[in-house]
Amino acid sequence: MKFVTYRLKTEKEPYQMGVLNHATVYDLASLINQSEDPVLQDLNSNPDHFYTTLPEDFTIIEAALLALDYRAGFSLNEVKLGPVVTAPQKIICIGTNYKDHVLEMGHQMPEYPVLFSKFSNALIGTEDVIEGRGKTDALDYEVELAVVIGKRATEVSERNAFDYVLGYTIANDTSARDLQKRTPQWLQGKSLDHSTPIGPYLVTKEEVPDPENLKIQSFVNGELRQTSNTNQLIFSIAHLIAFISDLMTLEPGDIILTGTPAGVGFARDPQALLSDGDTVSMTIEKLGTLNNEVKVSR
Amino acid sequence: MKFVTYRLKTEKEPYQMGVLNHATVYDLASLINQSEDPVLQDLNSNPDHFYTTLPEDFTIIEAALLALDYRAGFSLNEVKLGPVVTAPQKIICIGTNYKDHVLEMGHQMPEYPVLFSKFSNALIGTEDVIEGRGKTDALDYEVELAVVIGKRATEVSERNAFDYVLGYTIANDTSARDLQKRTPQWLQGKSLDHSTPIGPYLVTKEEVPDPENLKIQSFVNGELRQTSNTNQLIFSIAHLIAFISDLMTLEPGDIILTGTPAGVGFARDPQALLSDGDTVSMTIEKLGTLNNEVKVSR
Repeated sequence: MKFVTYRLKTEKEPYQMGVLNHATVYDLASLINQSEDPVLQDLNSNPDHFYTTLPEDFTIIEAALLALDYRAGFSLNEVKLGPVVTAPQKIICIGTNYKDHVLEMGHQMPEYPVLFSKFSNALIGTEDVIEGRGKTDALDYEVELAVVIGKRATEVSERNAFDYVLGYTIANDTSARDLQKRTPQWLQGKSLDHSTPIGPYLVTKEEVPDPENLKIQSFVNGELRQTSNTNQLIFSIAHLIAFISDLMTLEPGDIILTGTPAGVGFARDPQALLSDGDTVSMTIEKLGTLNNEVKVSR
Repeated sequence: MKFVTYRLKTEKEPYQMGVLNHATVYDLASLINQSEDPVLQDLNSNPDHFYTTLPEDFTIIEAALLALDYRAGFSLNEVKLGPVVTAPQKIICIGTNYKDHVLEMGHQMPEYPVLFSKFSNALIGTEDVIEGRGKTDALDYEVELAVVIGKRATEVSERNAFDYVLGYTIANDTSARDLQKRTPQWLQGKSLDHSTPIGPYLVTKEEVPDPENLKIQSFVNGELRQTSNTNQLIFSIAHLIAFISDLMTLEPGDIILTGTPAGVGFARDPQALLSDGDTVSMTIEKLGTLNNEVKVSR
């Protein structure tokens, strides 16, 4: 199943929660209203709260969808997709988690996962403009597999880690290298308003049986910049969930950005950072394509 | 005015939103229910949402309070106070913001504010137990002035920065030094579940006309460990709000921890980190006292 946030192109925000099925977006609130199932009626269709109200067995949503009049949906052409999660309590990013990227950045090979964060002010959807807002002269792209948590997780084992995963999406962990590196802590270069695309949709885990064997690529203006496979992760998804949940309880809707492979603009020779008008396209097998234009200037 | 979150000692969570007046806690939901003022009725008394619904002129709450039957409140003895903000979108911490602390930690004097984060899983109230959960052998205390944002702030100037402040409280930016320092990014040592007390109450800004001239102290088992004055901040409150809001939009309820002065356990000779059963007491002039016991082991 694929979850989206969306609005009609003819309308403004806020985004609504939807389910994507064969290029058609079904409004989740309508689905809930038409159902008499108490599990569905307990769902909060506001994207800010949806993930914390999702039942463990969400296939009930799929069943309700199948019972629905298929003309009730919107074509993808009619809608603008938003960030797949709008208000996560946590966005946890993993630094230096592909060996080739560790080497190109001149970092130490990590003994433990390196954790840092973004905040939800940064999140945008596919087709939104990545904004530098005139704050940076060194905006960079980083394609990453993002894991969305589905169930509260405290001290879970690697063996059980996937029980706590709702699904996957693509994130562009954009990084203002000048701001990131002007202090020892990276946060200030990682969370500019409207800088971080996440989407285009959330693919639930049953559609991605092997998330650690997915081709992952990024393109700038059509030119291949990063190409790897999630089987190159230094710390696996299960390890990351176990590691993080040992330190801090993960909540439904929390997002883990699992790190980026080599080929970022900062490390290229010559450097190839983002400029106004650039288009960034990121694909991960089974997860679709995340497309964004760049505006670095104000 | 002083805001609190509280629950009756005889009841369990969740915390309710309250107003503290002369050692009496008035329930905000009751206050709203008894009022016919539409501004009050727009308030969400759920602590997770309260700050985002607070009107710009919150003195209307004070007026409603004065009109209230004073017997309607609870004595402080009857209640357990929670963290003053339960679900901030952002907790932004400032590293190395007192010169004497920069020197004791062997850090570089900062050219720009150093930003890092905690998440709300870490927040607890006064009288709660600071939990190390057996994850750390080096839990440390850091007394800090915390600023709570009252109004959405994007690119605000230093001159106007205080227009966006709701008020102040005390935070103990507890730090698991072993976890903090085992990777280049500090997050994993800063956000253990139930590790970070914030309170005891939020004092709104009109009661603190000069937040940059407040005595700030911490004690462990009654022994003075840190003593300084907020006039020693390297980057001022106004500068921090301008600096951060230039990079990322601040939302109501967001918390800025402004940094800690010298005297932390890690930097003492001999080191004096926290142990099971220690009591940590932190005071900042006009903001009360934050008292917590420590449990490092599981």
